[in-house]
Amino acid sequence: MKTVVLVSGGMDSVVALYDAAEKNEVIAGLSFDYGSKHNHCEIPFAKYHCEKLDIPHRTIPLQFMNDCFDSHLLQNGGEIPEGHYESENMKQTVVPFRNGIMLAIAAGFAESQNAEAVTIAAHSGDHAIYPDCRSEFMDPMSKAIAAGTYANIQLLRPFVGIRKEDIAARGEELNVDFSQTWSCYKGGEIHCGKCGTCVERKEAFALAGIPDPTEYL
Amino acid sequence: MKTVVLVSGGMDSVVALYDAAEKNEVIAGLSFDYGSKHNHCEIPFAKYHCEKLDIPHRTIPLQFMNDCFDSHLLQNGGEIPEGHYESENMKQTVVPFRNGIMLAIAAGFAESQNAEAVTIAAHSGDHAIYPDCRSEFMDPMSKAIAAGTYANIQLLRPFVGIRKEDIAARGEELNVDFSQTWSCYKGGEIHCGKCGTCVERKEAFALAGIPDPTEYL
Repeated sequence: MKTVVLVSGGMDSVVALYDAAEKNEVIAGLSFDYGSKHNHCEIPFAKYHCEKLDIPHRTIPLQFMNDCFDSHLLQNGGEIPEGHYESENMKQTVVPFRNGIMLAIAAGFAESQNAEAVTIAAHSGDHAIYPDCRSEFMDPMSKAIAAGTYANIQLLRPFVGIRKEDIAARGEELNVDFSQTWSCYKGGEIHCGKCGTCVERKEAFALAGIPDPTEYL
Repeated sequence: MKTVVLVSGGMDSVVALYDAAEKNEVIAGLSFDYGSKHNHCEIPFAKYHCEKLDIPHRTIPLQFMNDCFDSHLLQNGGEIPEGHYESENMKQTVVPFRNGIMLAIAAGFAESQNAEAVTIAAHSGDHAIYPDCRSEFMDPMSKAIAAGTYANIQLLRPFVGIRKEDIAARGEELNVDFSQTWSCYKGGEIHCGKCGTCVERKEAFALAGIPDPTEYL
């Protein structure tokens, strides 16, 4: 099945890329530059892995989101909160309907490029605080994409039944070099180790029993 | 209800703007510059009507669609076909998943601006050839938007049960100046009168029994 893979450069989507390259024909990896504090850290890794797998990579510029969307994740937003990723204050890092926007663009791109599917790395641990990660969103979005395209583009969610630590294990199996992935929301020189996504990254490696190659502040 | 209105500058969406301004609190009119041949003709009219109604107007730049999407409607695409808008060759003017993309962005924008709804002028005459105009698309998209936002953003389709000629009649009732709207896909100096959307525009005025103020080539 010809698929377009959403690849941010984070560990989940990079594993999804390798997983899809094994199972499907990946016609492109898509990244989105929506003006977050960490886009400049993560997107080069998305490009790196696409090049390694000989998959065309494209970055879609969505700078208007930084101009008129409300989120601490964005350059124009407030400070990134520290703490556990399931805490209430992590809501500040939600970018409204980001998954909806990325999936919609990927669906149109896929239809234009004669692909049959779009792959997203959403997993069962994706948080209750992110409304556009829940299956209550993903299920109707999947239906909308199929009905709204001639090719009945399918939404593939290979990790929907597993957790982040299982994705780490799957990446290990696929020989993914996790040192070439980025999670930290702060977008500094190295991972801060304290923001929600750094905490989650550390936990995933620990639970999977895999050495964490990340340098934290 | 606070709503964001999708307003292209065409006759349907301009009437939807006036209709929403009467019934709701319109917090913004959104246009999308996706690199079509006629965006430069229609968007100034969207802005004109928003200013007239004292509604903030914003144009979202989506030039990447012209670069990597496949449609004759785009500047990089082939010639606009002439003929009846229900003809098979009008499929060439479909921009893949355009409504999905515009609605997704509008949903994120609406959530960021504390709005409660997004309004789209989709109507019952919207063509079978456009998959992302059908209710098979709109219904799940509506569910995805509600589930994917904290505010449970609603999708308002005030014209879903009526036809284009009824929209023209509603516009007449609302004193909409139709000379300040644009339909023609060719994006020339004046309306060509021969492309699918020009044919449809003429028909709507004729069926509604309203004088057509449009100058055709």
